[in-house]
Amino acid sequence: MTEKRPFDILNGALGGSVLLKLKGGVEVRGTMASYDVHMNIVLENAEQLEDGEVKRKLGTMLVRGDNIVFISPS
Amino acid sequence: MTEKRPFDILNGALGGSVLLKLKGGVEVRGTMASYDVHMNIVLENAEQLEDGEVKRKLGTMLVRGDNIVFISPS
Amino acid sequence: MTEKRPFDILNGALGGSVLLKLKGGVEVRGTMASYDVHMNIVLENAEQLEDGEVKRKLGTMLVRGDNIVFISPS
Amino acid sequence: MTEKRPFDILNGALGGSVLLKLKGGVEVRGTMASYDVHMNIVLENAEQLEDGEVKRKLGTMLVRGDNIVFISPS
Amino acid sequence: MTEKRPFDILNGALGGSVLLKLKGGVEVRGTMASYDVHMNIVLENAEQLEDGEVKRKLGTMLVRGDNIVFISPS
Amino acid sequence: MTEKRPFDILNGALGGSVLLKLKGGVEVRGTMASYDVHMNIVLENAEQLEDGEVKRKLGTMLVRGDNIVFISPS
Amino acid sequence: MTEKRPFDILNGALGGSVLLKLKGGVEVRGTMASYDVHMNIVLENAEQLEDGEVKRKLGTMLVRGDNIVFISPS
Repeated sequence: MTEKRPFDILNGALGGSVLLKLKGGVEVRGTMASYDVHMNIVLENAEQLEDGEVKRKLGTMLVRGDNIVFISPS
Repeated sequence: MTEKRPFDILNGALGGSVLLKLKGGVEVRGTMASYDVHMNIVLENAEQLEDGEVKRKLGTMLVRGDNIVFISPS
Repeated sequence: MTEKRPFDILNGALGGSVLLKLKGGVEVRGTMASYDVHMNIVLENAEQLEDGEVKRKLGTMLVRGDNIVFISPS
Repeated sequence: MTEKRPFDILNGALGGSVLLKLKGGVEVRGTMASYDVHMNIVLENAEQLEDGEVKRKLGTMLVRGDNIVFISPS
Repeated sequence: MTEKRPFDILNGALGGSVLLKLKGGVEVRGTMASYDVHMNIVLENAEQLEDGEVKRKLGTMLVRGDNIVFISPS
Repeated sequence: MTEKRPFDILNGALGGSVLLKLKGGVEVRGTMASYDVHMNIVLENAEQLEDGEVKRKLGTMLVRGDNIVFISPS
Repeated sequence: MTEKRPFDILNGALGGSVLLKLKGGVEVRGTMASYDVHMNIVLENAEQLEDGEVKRKLGTMLVRGDNIVFISPS
């Protein structure tokens, strides 16, 4: 167990693949390119998932932080 | 992977086509004409999409930032 | 493409017809009479739409800005 | 078209009948007795409507502003 | 028609029976014992209603103001 | 009828059993161990209820205040 | 019954297993690694649950505090 603060996980995830669960049930996966204090997140090579399968490829995307339920680096 | 901040992607998207996923499932696509710090966005030649197909043409539109789930330049 | 800020579109829409998509799926159309910084909007000769058809005529109405999904001048 | 600010419509509606559409689809109608800057509104002789018909009479009521979708004087 | 401010109605309702419609459709009725500036309200001898019938008796309860749709003294 | 302020009821409920109705319809019951100004509440010996029956035992739990619809000491 | 403040429970839960109920009904369980004042929480060895069964393993995850309904150390 680490004792890092929650936002440390965002910094450590830069450049790696992350899974984002959004409000309303949408899930997207991509390479985390940047974030800010509102947890707004830019993904590259992003894909929208449905039941774990790729539904469509979205390239670069900006996800509003207030729509994020959780973020999981993979 | 870039290290740009999330809002940089909005600036880079000006004048190009973007896809917006809104709360409640509506999707719109158009040419990004302007934005502000609340992520309010003006699209021109905007179209509302349904299952990826054009449902109706809306011309110029102002989308409230707090309804945006994600923005993807295309 | 213009480089006007999002709220400029509201000013330009004064006196003309606008379509408002509200949270919960309601759509209204009317002549834009005024707005404020919260995006509260007064419409005159307003009509509530359903599937693009006029459902009922509402005359003058004040729409709370935080219920607006998008505004499209027509 | 007037150029009054949105809240002017509330002042002009005092003492007259207004229709309020609330979040969740409820509609109420009554005589507008007072309002404040949060758009909290007191109606007198208020009635809850369903499909345009009176569902029940509620007398005096205070409606929280943040539940209001739109207000239409009639 | 009175010209009292919206919160005046809360003060006048102290000690009397009020009907509260809450977000999500729940309705409760009880004797209004206190309130604060957030519209948090304490009811005594409170009952939860369903289709106008008493569903269960809840005694004393504190209702969070931000869940209130409307308050109607009876 | 008392004239205590709404939060007084929380203080008086410390150490006793309370019923919490949460947004989304979940109900929990337990011994109220602490609260703060955001109405965040710690319950001990907490149980999640369904139709008034115990669905599962949850032991100690922290409930976020902004998810609470009402609190009823029993 | 303790008289600790609500956030004390988070501190006491560090390094142990917690169950998080999120808005929209999702439940996750994992080892609590960190939290902040917004109740943002990092779990390690996290699992998403469905009807109490493990639906999928998610490893490390950051859960936004404003999506949390309740937190229960186990």
